[in-house]
Amino acid sequence: MNESSPTTHVTPPLSSEDRPARLTVLASGGGSNLAALLAACEEQTYGARVVAVGTDRHGTGAADLACQAGIRHFTCRVADYADRAAWDEALTAEVAREAPDLVISAGFLKLCGPAFLRAFAGRYVNTHNSLLPAFPGIRGPADALAYGVKLAGATLFVVDEGIDTGVVLAQVAVPVHFEDDADTLLERIKVAERRQLVDTIGQMCREGWTIRGRLAKIGA
Amino acid sequence: MNESSPTTHVTPPLSSEDRPARLTVLASGGGSNLAALLAACEEQTYGARVVAVGTDRHGTGAADLACQAGIRHFTCRVADYADRAAWDEALTAEVAREAPDLVISAGFLKLCGPAFLRAFAGRYVNTHNSLLPAFPGIRGPADALAYGVKLAGATLFVVDEGIDTGVVLAQVAVPVHFEDDADTLLERIKVAERRQLVDTIGQMCREGWTIRGRLAKIGA
Repeated sequence: MNESSPTTHVTPPLSSEDRPARLTVLASGGGSNLAALLAACEEQTYGARVVAVGTDRHGTGAADLACQAGIRHFTCRVADYADRAAWDEALTAEVAREAPDLVISAGFLKLCGPAFLRAFAGRYVNTHNSLLPAFPGIRGPADALAYGVKLAGATLFVVDEGIDTGVVLAQVAVPVHFEDDADTLLERIKVAERRQLVDTIGQMCREGWTIRGRLAKIGA
Repeated sequence: MNESSPTTHVTPPLSSEDRPARLTVLASGGGSNLAALLAACEEQTYGARVVAVGTDRHGTGAADLACQAGIRHFTCRVADYADRAAWDEALTAEVAREAPDLVISAGFLKLCGPAFLRAFAGRYVNTHNSLLPAFPGIRGPADALAYGVKLAGATLFVVDEGIDTGVVLAQVAVPVHFEDDADTLLERIKVAERRQLVDTIGQMCREGWTIRGRLAKIGA
């Protein structure tokens, strides 16, 4: 294998007609992305269902949504474990219990550790509120505004060991307005990000995806 | 002036009904962007005309275009001067002769020096074939492809002392296809980049622009 022929990895559809793909969603906040996924999963043609919701703190909107939908919910707080590695192992075990086809970070504000990344390699996806590789980290929209870009956006990617460095699955752009502050820009990004998350996850489940080198193609 | 109230700089329209704005275009290659600007300038309503074309080498398509259009052309080759500073001074003097309202780098493959940047501060714009700040430098599309982004694009910006770091005037996104190589992606970017260049320069000339901090707004 040399530079001119990068490795190609094909993932077949995760769902079949009588078996929707199994999604576990990790979240830290209100769960607006989770709510959008749950709504999409109500349509049988979507090809997926949420089998578990995990949070890293108590009292989240995401947990309430899981409860209302009758979906298993668990909380793994770093503070409840001896160290970060023990937390990582516990989270990995909790997520593994439902044998998810995909694990989705939807506003999960923790970096998962090596045990988790090994267990769900290539199956753990995250959505970030910038057009990566520009503006990684937790201040994406504010950093974009400070730089003065005219296009901001959101990136769905496969999580790897880096911070927001994994293979890109989908990107969507939104305009930055001269009158924007970080909040109005974030709100505009969120709307596009949520639609992209729902659309891309559904297509990945129904049609599979291909990754050649760092280039991804969703669907057949 | 503190962080919460950045400097605002308003540039009024460069053209009036009976005086189109004066553009000097710098180029190193075939001049496809120059050709698009020349075509736009044929419409009186565009609000600008090209008053000079400068190149940094002999035998360019850009020089031929200038000749055919009856526009003054000059060549400033670094090799013809004692050092880079002398070249920079000479280029500055050549460009200044026509007193341009805007100087446009349209595929000009040289970094202008301090004399030039002082003389045309805030009036020298460049177009780059990536969505800055991602993928600056001379391999924008190839770097974008290697990273695996799903959106590439072009950025029109005000040149400052850095490499592709100036205030962003306009950005346009194009999709990256799984089948792309650097050439097919570059070609797709070029089409969008050319339209953005022509549209934005025209609007800047007719309506002016505002820059607050690093955020630009074209038009009133």
